Amino acid sequence: MKFELKSDRVFDMIAIGRACIDLNATEYNRPMEETMTFTKYVGGSPVNIAIGSSKLGLKTGFIGKLADDQHGRFISNYIQNLGIDITGVVIDQAGHKTGLAFTEIKSPEECSILMYRENVADLYLEPDEVSEDYIKQASVLLVSGTALSQSPSREAIIKAVSLARKHQVKVIFELDYRPYTWTSKEQTSIYYTLVAEQADIIIGTRDEFDILENRIGENEQTIAYLFQHTPQLIVIKHGIEGSYAYTKSGDVFQSKAYMTKVLKTFGAGDSYASAFLYALFAGKDIATALKYGSASASIVVSKHSSSEAMPTVSQIEQLIAADETEAQYRSR
Amino acid sequence: MKFELKSDRVFDMIAIGRACIDLNATEYNRPMEETMTFTKYVGGSPVNIAIGSSKLGLKTGFIGKLADDQHGRFISNYIQNLGIDITGVVIDQAGHKTGLAFTEIKSPEECSILMYRENVADLYLEPDEVSEDYIKQASVLLVSGTALSQSPSREAIIKAVSLARKHQVKVIFELDYRPYTWTSKEQTSIYYTLVAEQADIIIGTRDEFDILENRIGENEQTIAYLFQHTPQLIVIKHGIEGSYAYTKSGDVFQSKAYMTKVLKTFGAGDSYASAFLYALFAGKDIATALKYGSASASIVVSKHSSSEAMPTVSQIEQLIAADETEAQYRSR
Amino acid sequence: MKFELKSDRVFDMIAIGRACIDLNATEYNRPMEETMTFTKYVGGSPVNIAIGSSKLGLKTGFIGKLADDQHGRFISNYIQNLGIDITGVVIDQAGHKTGLAFTEIKSPEECSILMYRENVADLYLEPDEVSEDYIKQASVLLVSGTALSQSPSREAIIKAVSLARKHQVKVIFELDYRPYTWTSKEQTSIYYTLVAEQADIIIGTRDEFDILENRIGENEQTIAYLFQHTPQLIVIKHGIEGSYAYTKSGDVFQSKAYMTKVLKTFGAGDSYASAFLYALFAGKDIATALKYGSASASIVVSKHSSSEAMPTVSQIEQLIAADETEAQYRSR
Amino acid sequence: MKFELKSDRVFDMIAIGRACIDLNATEYNRPMEETMTFTKYVGGSPVNIAIGSSKLGLKTGFIGKLADDQHGRFISNYIQNLGIDITGVVIDQAGHKTGLAFTEIKSPEECSILMYRENVADLYLEPDEVSEDYIKQASVLLVSGTALSQSPSREAIIKAVSLARKHQVKVIFELDYRPYTWTSKEQTSIYYTLVAEQADIIIGTRDEFDILENRIGENEQTIAYLFQHTPQLIVIKHGIEGSYAYTKSGDVFQSKAYMTKVLKTFGAGDSYASAFLYALFAGKDIATALKYGSASASIVVSKHSSSEAMPTVSQIEQLIAADETEAQYRSR
Repeated sequence: MKFELKSDRVFDMIAIGRACIDLNATEYNRPMEETMTFTKYVGGSPVNIAIGSSKLGLKTGFIGKLADDQHGRFISNYIQNLGIDITGVVIDQAGHKTGLAFTEIKSPEECSILMYRENVADLYLEPDEVSEDYIKQASVLLVSGTALSQSPSREAIIKAVSLARKHQVKVIFELDYRPYTWTSKEQTSIYYTLVAEQADIIIGTRDEFDILENRIGENEQTIAYLFQHTPQLIVIKHGIEGSYAYTKSGDVFQSKAYMTKVLKTFGAGDSYASAFLYALFAGKDIATALKYGSASASIVVSKHSSSEAMPTVSQIEQLIAADETEAQYRSR
Repeated sequence: MKFELKSDRVFDMIAIGRACIDLNATEYNRPMEETMTFTKYVGGSPVNIAIGSSKLGLKTGFIGKLADDQHGRFISNYIQNLGIDITGVVIDQAGHKTGLAFTEIKSPEECSILMYRENVADLYLEPDEVSEDYIKQASVLLVSGTALSQSPSREAIIKAVSLARKHQVKVIFELDYRPYTWTSKEQTSIYYTLVAEQADIIIGTRDEFDILENRIGENEQTIAYLFQHTPQLIVIKHGIEGSYAYTKSGDVFQSKAYMTKVLKTFGAGDSYASAFLYALFAGKDIATALKYGSASASIVVSKHSSSEAMPTVSQIEQLIAADETEAQYRSR
Repeated sequence: MKFELKSDRVFDMIAIGRACIDLNATEYNRPMEETMTFTKYVGGSPVNIAIGSSKLGLKTGFIGKLADDQHGRFISNYIQNLGIDITGVVIDQAGHKTGLAFTEIKSPEECSILMYRENVADLYLEPDEVSEDYIKQASVLLVSGTALSQSPSREAIIKAVSLARKHQVKVIFELDYRPYTWTSKEQTSIYYTLVAEQADIIIGTRDEFDILENRIGENEQTIAYLFQHTPQLIVIKHGIEGSYAYTKSGDVFQSKAYMTKVLKTFGAGDSYASAFLYALFAGKDIATALKYGSASASIVVSKHSSSEAMPTVSQIEQLIAADETEAQYRSR
Repeated sequence: MKFELKSDRVFDMIAIGRACIDLNATEYNRPMEETMTFTKYVGGSPVNIAIGSSKLGLKTGFIGKLADDQHGRFISNYIQNLGIDITGVVIDQAGHKTGLAFTEIKSPEECSILMYRENVADLYLEPDEVSEDYIKQASVLLVSGTALSQSPSREAIIKAVSLARKHQVKVIFELDYRPYTWTSKEQTSIYYTLVAEQADIIIGTRDEFDILENRIGENEQTIAYLFQHTPQLIVIKHGIEGSYAYTKSGDVFQSKAYMTKVLKTFGAGDSYASAFLYALFAGKDIATALKYGSASASIVVSKHSSSEAMPTVSQIEQLIAADETEAQYRSR
């Protein structure tokens, strides 16, 4: 079964939200206290999805607010060099800084992130900095949940979703829940609900859907509620148990997680989303798109960064093929 | 002429104020946008002065508030390993982060710093976290101007100065002016004046004394005003033109700046202060103490970091000696 | 043509939002600078509408947050004595104060209001203080626009609207635009749009609909847009030119403004809304309900207060009848 | 023994700090919940002292920031009409409001005040709005403790004190402690200490001196500490037990409280200070000045307002005389 995304506009996908800096400990297998050097990467869920999608060949744009400093310029240069359109990027004029994420990789099971998110530029995107003319050029608008956490970014997102619906741009909602940017779970649930009910596709982990619903829930309840509203396709990820896709027409698809040598646990969600969307644009059926997502995620968790490590189509397809060969071999 | 600092208490010097993280671009001679790795050091004027003083053999303590995270623990471990007493260090319990300074070294003439100072832990030191019993164990309390920029750190410093005076602890005021932490020059001037009038020794650049007075001034006016109050010794630095020391009794001393291969311009002030104070404790006369300060500064600006690069006594004395030999040679 | 509101639940109407104190100059026809005494009344659009409706016989409840002080207790006692249910009233525990409005009545044409709205209790209503069990007991939920201006009251309202829709409680949106509580017109428009698209009835002045749409508009455009969404009935008031009611089915009704001896201009909107809603509950047709609203407004603007002056059914009906008698007389 | 204040400058006294509005319940002997009308008066300790002093014949000026609204203009007009110079009054341009104090008079023993002090104009006086040329025209600068509670008013006061000392203007520090404007007792103590150590005369209740010292203290300890610094004369009030004046030279004077029919308890301190200062200017000895203060306080607590009720010289002297006659009569 297919869920077709058509590539008939200037941009296949425009992502909106934060773009930050990851500072990944260069040395592995030790606590950050003992780490002496850090390597700089572009980070942040929506810009990572834009990067991943662009590397897979989608025509991609990005809307976000960047600091007027060295980190902001690095991000802007980096994504432009990858071919992502930056017409929608706004430079902050109020001295706000770029968000930072210092990561340590103690072991594959134990990674931690130290965040700098006080008054960061991305949360100062204003509604009137979101252009209707720009959004209507996209087939898909990808919205990230964290951008809803504070004003005025919150209102910019609500406006962008409204504009997308006005121009039949499909809205993809990647839940991307980061507790430290929110003041309460009740508030998170209210704004997640607001956008989820208007989105065409929702992607998140089971834990993130619990945040959306503000209760511990089951997939069946979740989809029963959400399919009363706009959503057509819902993807719920269960970590190493794999992921599920549900359609409004009642179909369910499942994909296992691909085995890999895990270096760290972050970055998986962004690579999943970009490969899944790519596959839908490429005309793959939903079951195959789930495989693309899972395979892409497993590639990124084996690498040092999130953005730099985004795979190519052939890397993803080789992993899927190798896995199927091995499976056939084992099943004989 | 001497200005004696006596080493007859548990600590020669206790420094109070901020301790942060410097992230210095590992690659030189390029803008930070193109720098991909950063090396982590302890930073922040008062902790740097404590580090420099401790390496020169002074018995040193530090009072400050550190984040309860990997960066905070790194700082605490690092200074404790150098032999600095951390009894006065308080761990923040409110989620505030460690201040950051990203540095780029484009060329010896062009360095820039990108600061993260939003709600940083050091500015949340509370007055009741400053211990009278601890301060009275010191010969000298070193106060850094930046700690006056925001409440409650501001009040903690005012209290510390009051306690120092009550117990005949000499107050050294290092002006350390950082514009981005202040709301107005008028406010800076008011709090700088408040502490300067109660300090025994004041050290700063000519520009910093202009901030203190809130006007463009001359050294003669500055000392005429300040010597009406508590100060006994005032050191005014004029960059490559050298520095001046003035005493209340009317003496003036001058030292040139030492020539060196400059790598970057920051860190000079902290190494200057620690070597100058060391020399006063070591019983050197004021003219010689100025040389120690200048020589120490010239060593640090030729190195990659500020804290790690703090010189030993023999490094300082070798530089002074070599310079004098050369001077004799040239004067023949 | 009728738009029936059924009186088949515990409450005909529950109003949600602010309840404040009006301090009306006791002396008329002079600037407030020369006014020496003020008389205290309950004020605030949604509580005024609750008061007006209750006096007209509707079973009414109120949801809002009140200060834990003399002014808060005055409001609570006052509305309870009028028979309004206060189960949904929450007492603020964080020291927030009651909003104030000082009014001066210089002349019928020139009245001004001096507002105290800094951190007032009503804007601190939390989403989890809005009870689903309470809201579902109402036929109608009356929402006032000002309550959307700040968090957490904003989220409490969004949640209340969501709960109302879940339980088939009709949502009445009284636009009640007060510029001083909003940070930008763009933001106002975003949240007004959000609620307006989900409301069953919207009532406001032409100026307020312009705020909702963030442009200077015409009634025809306004209703064309809004009737694409949930609204069934839209009332647009044009001051002394009278008011219009539009139905989704395409009917238009008009009422003139009633002549009266105007004392002051405020309070008209709240009395209009309560009488209009009363008439719908009483089974009057839309054209008659407009008359009730207009007549009620004209009574309140001839009196000193807004809340105390809310008329009874017989006062309203007498005014309408007298006006029609006179009209017949004139038309002979 | 005398403590002479010379009347040889343009102004005898300039008071600096807040000017607010009191809204006193017109009805007595009932809780504010049941009070329906309020009468408006000028209020706030330093402006009240200026009013009281002006009525007693001192040449008086006022420095403070007033809201740009009806309440601000009322205050400005009112004090100007009393002959107080308003050259130093600044009109707020940032929309801040006038502080309010609603008072209820339940009984002579039970009065309560409901304060509105959120972002009030008086606390936004900026240091650069305090004129050196103006302050140097005064014999005395009267500083009120509450103005130290928040920036930028805090810095404006610190600057005003510094300017006063530079120009030999005597500094009178009226402690005027209001807990609701301060973030902590520790902070209050720090800024009270800062100003107290630089003041010539300090006036406060025993409780307020405890706040200054941040401990429960005795008068003997208090004066032992403060007389190590600038103060020459310290007045400590013990309510109905009367008040004490201490001089640096070691003298102690005492005055009883005058009996009166008490209507309410507030306003006493301001009338005390103005009459005490008046008496010093009039060349009375300290013992007599204490009587003037006490008599003035007893007159104000028997009246409805604080500012309007400020007595004349003859009212004060009549009360003192009547009391002494009666005492002689009783002692026979």
